[in-house]
Amino acid sequence: MQRIAIDMDEVIADVYPRFYEWYERDFNLKIDQQLIQGKYIRDTVPSDHREKVANYLHVDGFFKDLPVIADSQEVLFELSKKYELFIASAAMEFKYSLLHKHEWMTTHFPFIPWSHIVFCGDKSIIHADYLIDDHVRNFKGFRGQGILFTSPHNINETWNPRVNNWKEVAKLLL
Amino acid sequence: MQRIAIDMDEVIADVYPRFYEWYERDFNLKIDQQLIQGKYIRDTVPSDHREKVANYLHVDGFFKDLPVIADSQEVLFELSKKYELFIASAAMEFKYSLLHKHEWMTTHFPFIPWSHIVFCGDKSIIHADYLIDDHVRNFKGFRGQGILFTSPHNINETWNPRVNNWKEVAKLLL
Repeated sequence: MQRIAIDMDEVIADVYPRFYEWYERDFNLKIDQQLIQGKYIRDTVPSDHREKVANYLHVDGFFKDLPVIADSQEVLFELSKKYELFIASAAMEFKYSLLHKHEWMTTHFPFIPWSHIVFCGDKSIIHADYLIDDHVRNFKGFRGQGILFTSPHNINETWNPRVNNWKEVAKLLL
Repeated sequence: MQRIAIDMDEVIADVYPRFYEWYERDFNLKIDQQLIQGKYIRDTVPSDHREKVANYLHVDGFFKDLPVIADSQEVLFELSKKYELFIASAAMEFKYSLLHKHEWMTTHFPFIPWSHIVFCGDKSIIHADYLIDDHVRNFKGFRGQGILFTSPHNINETWNPRVNNWKEVAKLLL
């Protein structure tokens, strides 16, 4: 059975709404949805806001109760019948994300057992046939086939294959 | 550069003292050090204590501030000059272990960066040349060479190579 590794943030869990919410709370400003295309959010805010925004990811609670990316539950459930699935998140950079990501998986993807969830850093440690990820850098050193999942920050990256949503993942792999 | 994956519990972190401490606290009894040879602790206590003891691993705080296994810091530091090291712990079974294990690594193994720490379940996902682990079951499906690290519970297991301590790891790999 072939094995697919799937990233969490911006592939099955949507972190953007939390950035919007906290930025508005702290600066009473909205993040410009046009400006963030092809960039990281922290690089689109005024320079004196940058440090605080970049640090959001390290704050306890940032990763709690994030929305699920559209169709990811249904498509992963179908994929789980044909492939061995592993969730592989580079969560180790953010120690307060660990418990919340674990609880989020149990809540939203109960058909993926704890034994098939991986929190790591460098994804070259992952042994799988495919890796669905929103960061091209995570395909470096990965021995299988990287599949780039479109997110606002990566729209100008060149990678093939690229999928724009979970319906396109289904078309590619089912 | 060859890559070594290293388990945490009973390889670099000693969980036995926490079992002894909590068992004595809860039952006012000492765990018999002779009885635990070749067995899991939970299978050596009176049957009406078993459930509570088995559940210790799921209690928040169990994995906090565990002692470091002798010579593991020195030998891993030397190994880090010749090999790429990844810590690979099947921590995902115990969600309250995640933050404490992360903090423990930062405290005791500061030369191993977060990018080279992996919390997983099924270790067949680990892509490495060697895996040093105290559970033979973790070598199933692992593509590299498993190295069994002696712990009281595994003394009757047959596996080659087996190492009894970190000085023997140094002899084998340095």
